[in-house]
Amino acid sequence: MAYQALDTKNVIDYIKNRPAMQRIFPLDANLTAKEVGDGNLNLVFIIQEDGNAQHSAVLKQALPYLRVAGESWPLTRERMRFETQALLLHNQLAPGLAPEVYDHDEEMSLVIMEYLGHHEVMRMPLVRRERFPRFVDHISTFMARTLFFTSDLYLSGVEKKELQAKYINPHLCKIQEDFVFTNPYIESPENKWNPAIDAEVQAVRRNSPLKLAIAEVKESYMTHAQSLIHSDLHTGSIMLNQNDTRVIDPEFAFYGPMGFDVGAVLENLVLNYLSHYAHTPDPGVRLEYQAYLLDMVRDVWIEFAQKFEGLWVENNRGELAPAKYWDYPGGDEAFREFRRRYIQGVLHDTAGHGGCKMLRRMMGIVSVWDITSIQDLQKRAVAERLAIKIGSRWVLERNQVDTIEDLIGIVLEETS
Amino acid sequence: MAYQALDTKNVIDYIKNRPAMQRIFPLDANLTAKEVGDGNLNLVFIIQEDGNAQHSAVLKQALPYLRVAGESWPLTRERMRFETQALLLHNQLAPGLAPEVYDHDEEMSLVIMEYLGHHEVMRMPLVRRERFPRFVDHISTFMARTLFFTSDLYLSGVEKKELQAKYINPHLCKIQEDFVFTNPYIESPENKWNPAIDAEVQAVRRNSPLKLAIAEVKESYMTHAQSLIHSDLHTGSIMLNQNDTRVIDPEFAFYGPMGFDVGAVLENLVLNYLSHYAHTPDPGVRLEYQAYLLDMVRDVWIEFAQKFEGLWVENNRGELAPAKYWDYPGGDEAFREFRRRYIQGVLHDTAGHGGCKMLRRMMGIVSVWDITSIQDLQKRAVAERLAIKIGSRWVLERNQVDTIEDLIGIVLEETS
Repeated sequence: MAYQALDTKNVIDYIKNRPAMQRIFPLDANLTAKEVGDGNLNLVFIIQEDGNAQHSAVLKQALPYLRVAGESWPLTRERMRFETQALLLHNQLAPGLAPEVYDHDEEMSLVIMEYLGHHEVMRMPLVRRERFPRFVDHISTFMARTLFFTSDLYLSGVEKKELQAKYINPHLCKIQEDFVFTNPYIESPENKWNPAIDAEVQAVRRNSPLKLAIAEVKESYMTHAQSLIHSDLHTGSIMLNQNDTRVIDPEFAFYGPMGFDVGAVLENLVLNYLSHYAHTPDPGVRLEYQAYLLDMVRDVWIEFAQKFEGLWVENNRGELAPAKYWDYPGGDEAFREFRRRYIQGVLHDTAGHGGCKMLRRMMGIVSVWDITSIQDLQKRAVAERLAIKIGSRWVLERNQVDTIEDLIGIVLEETS
Repeated sequence: MAYQALDTKNVIDYIKNRPAMQRIFPLDANLTAKEVGDGNLNLVFIIQEDGNAQHSAVLKQALPYLRVAGESWPLTRERMRFETQALLLHNQLAPGLAPEVYDHDEEMSLVIMEYLGHHEVMRMPLVRRERFPRFVDHISTFMARTLFFTSDLYLSGVEKKELQAKYINPHLCKIQEDFVFTNPYIESPENKWNPAIDAEVQAVRRNSPLKLAIAEVKESYMTHAQSLIHSDLHTGSIMLNQNDTRVIDPEFAFYGPMGFDVGAVLENLVLNYLSHYAHTPDPGVRLEYQAYLLDMVRDVWIEFAQKFEGLWVENNRGELAPAKYWDYPGGDEAFREFRRRYIQGVLHDTAGHGGCKMLRRMMGIVSVWDITSIQDLQKRAVAERLAIKIGSRWVLERNQVDTIEDLIGIVLEETS
C-alpha cells in the first residue's frame, strides 16, 4: 500500500491484513496497540493480544520528517530499508542476537519484529550497577560473526561488492560524519555541553594534534569499507537481561571499519565507568563495579578477537588472502602473522573510533544518559573531564596500542 | 536496439542511424569501417569518411564472451557502462586528457568516441627512446583532477556515496584482485614467466614478509574507497604525441586508493627503464634515456602532488575536513600538516601498489611489451630480475618512504 503514517487504530487493521503475521497472532485475536516511540524519526508500536501478552510484536515505521520539527524537516524514509535488511542479515549471521523479523513492507517503510518485553536497554541497568553474566559472550559473538562474515576475509570479491552496493547509505553516514567527527569540534549551533567544562571543550576545538587525528579517524570511517558494520552500536542499541542479548536499531549499517563497532561498545562501558563517580558515592561499592566494567572492556575485546580469529582460521575462503595464498613452506606462520597484524589494526581503529565517540558525547548534539542523568553539574563535570582526557588519549595514541591492556591502562592512569 | 555484435558492414548503418553522430559525419557521407581490436574482450572499429579522413570516429563494443576462447567463456557486458561513464566523467574533470565521447548505447554495450589517429600508445615510443615534453604536465593534471574531484576532500558525503554506488564494479575488480595481487604469487595455470628467472619467481612465492606485505596492499585495493580511480593506468592505457595526451580504457574504474593509479604510471616508467638494458646496448645512449625516464618518475610525482594540493587548498569544501574544521588559531598550520600527511599516505600507497604491479608483470598472466619484446631470454632476465628486486623493495619499504627520491633511490641502488 502507498505510504501513510500509522496510528494506534489503523495499525491493528494493517497487521490483520498481513499474511505473515498470522503465525504470530490468531486470526480472531483482539489486539491492542500502544505507541512508545521516544524518538523523533520513527513511530514504534507495541501490539499485543488482549489477555495473552505473549502474542506480541513491535512495528517500527520511519517517518518522512523529524517529529519534533513537524513536517517541515524532511528525512529520507529509505533508512527503514537499511534497518530491515540489516536486521535480516544479523538474524542470519548471529542468530538469537538480534530481534526476530516477522514481516516488513518497504513501501510503508516499516518492519515488524519480536517484542522484547523481557529486555531492557543496557544503559539504565549499568547505572544501577547490574551485572550481565552472558553479555560479554553475546556481544563478542555478535561482532565477531557479523564483522567476519561480511568482510573480504570470508566473502568472494563479487559477493562483497554486491552486498556493499545494497548498503551504500549516504544520508545516515552523513549523520555520523557530522555528529561524531566534525560538528562537536567546531562551533555549531546544535552542540551542547556542560558549562562547567567549557574550558576543556574549547581546548579540544583548538588542539591541532587532536584535530588532525580526528580527521584521520574520520577518513577511516568514510573510506575503509572493511565490513558491514552496525555503525551505532552503543549501549542504547543493546537490549538485554540475565540470559539474553539483542542488538537493535541497525539503520546506520554500511561498509565501514570494524573498529567503529568495537569502539562503540568499549567507549560506552568506559563512559558508564566514569558516571559512577557521581552515581555511586560509596568508594568501595564504586570501585568494585568499576573493576567489573573494566573487566568487561577487556573481555569483550579478548573474546571478540579470539572468536574473530577462530572464524577466520576455520573459514579462510575470502577473496583477500585465502588458504591457497599461504600454501607454501612457512605459509602457516605467515598467515598467523597476517591475522595478528590485521586484528591489531582493528584494535587501533577501536581506540581511534572509540576515542572520537567518547569526545563527541561530551560536546556534540548527542550526549549519554549515563552522564547527563547526573544532576549536579560539578559532579557531572568530574566524569566529563575524565572522558575528554581518556578519549583524547585513545585517539592520539591509537596506533601505539599493542593490547587491550594499553587502552585500559589509559583509563586507569587518568582516573587514579 | 537489442544487443548484437556489430561487423564492418552493419556498423555503418548503425552509425548512420544515430542522431548524435550527425555532427561528426555528414548525412550523405560514404563511410568505411575497419575492425582493429587486438583485444579479446571488445570489438573496436575505426570509421572514416571516404576521401575525408578527418571525419572519423572509433566505436568500441563489448563482447559478451572472451574472443580467443569463443563463445564458451562468457563475460559481463556491463563493463562498457563503467567505461562510458568514466570516459564522460574524465572529459568533464580533465578536459582534453581523455578521448571525447560522441555517443553511447548501453543496450548495445558500446561507446563512440574520438579517433586518436595522431596518437600512439605510449609503450612503443618509450622503447624507441622518444621524448614527450608535455606528458608530465598532462598525466599529473589528469591524476590530480580526477582523483581530487572524486574524493571526500571535494565532494559532500552524499555526493561521494552516490557516485561510489554507480561504480561498484565487482567483476572488473575481481580481475585485478586475482591478477595483480593473488595469482602471480601462487601456482596458477595462467601464470607465465621467463624460465631464466624461475628461481627468483619461486622465491617470491615463498617470501613470507613480501607475501604479508602484498596481502596488506591488496587489502588497501579492496577496501580503501578514496577516489574514483582509473585502476588500469599503465602506459598501454595512455595515447599521446608531442602535444597531446589521452587516457583511454577506464573500464576498471571504481572507488579505490589513489596510489594504485599513481603507482601504475611510475612503475611502468621503471619497467621501461629496465627494458633498455636490452633495447639500448650503447651505455651512453642508454644512461641518458634512463635518466630521462627517472626524471619523469620524479616529475610526475612532484607535479601530481603540487597540483593535487593546490586543488585542495583552492576547493576545501569536501566532507572530510572542510575549511570550517580548521577555522581556529593555528588551524592553517594544522590543515597544512593534514595535507602533508595525506599526500605522504598517497606516496606510500604509490610505492605499495606500484611495487605489486611491477612484480605481477614478471610472473603473472599479464606481462609488458617493453620487456617481452626482448627476444634473448637471458638479456630479458637481466631486466626482470631487477624488476623483482625493485618491486619487492617498493612493497616492503612502502611505509618508510619519505619522498619520491626514496623510490628513485631504490631503482638507482639496485641498478648501479
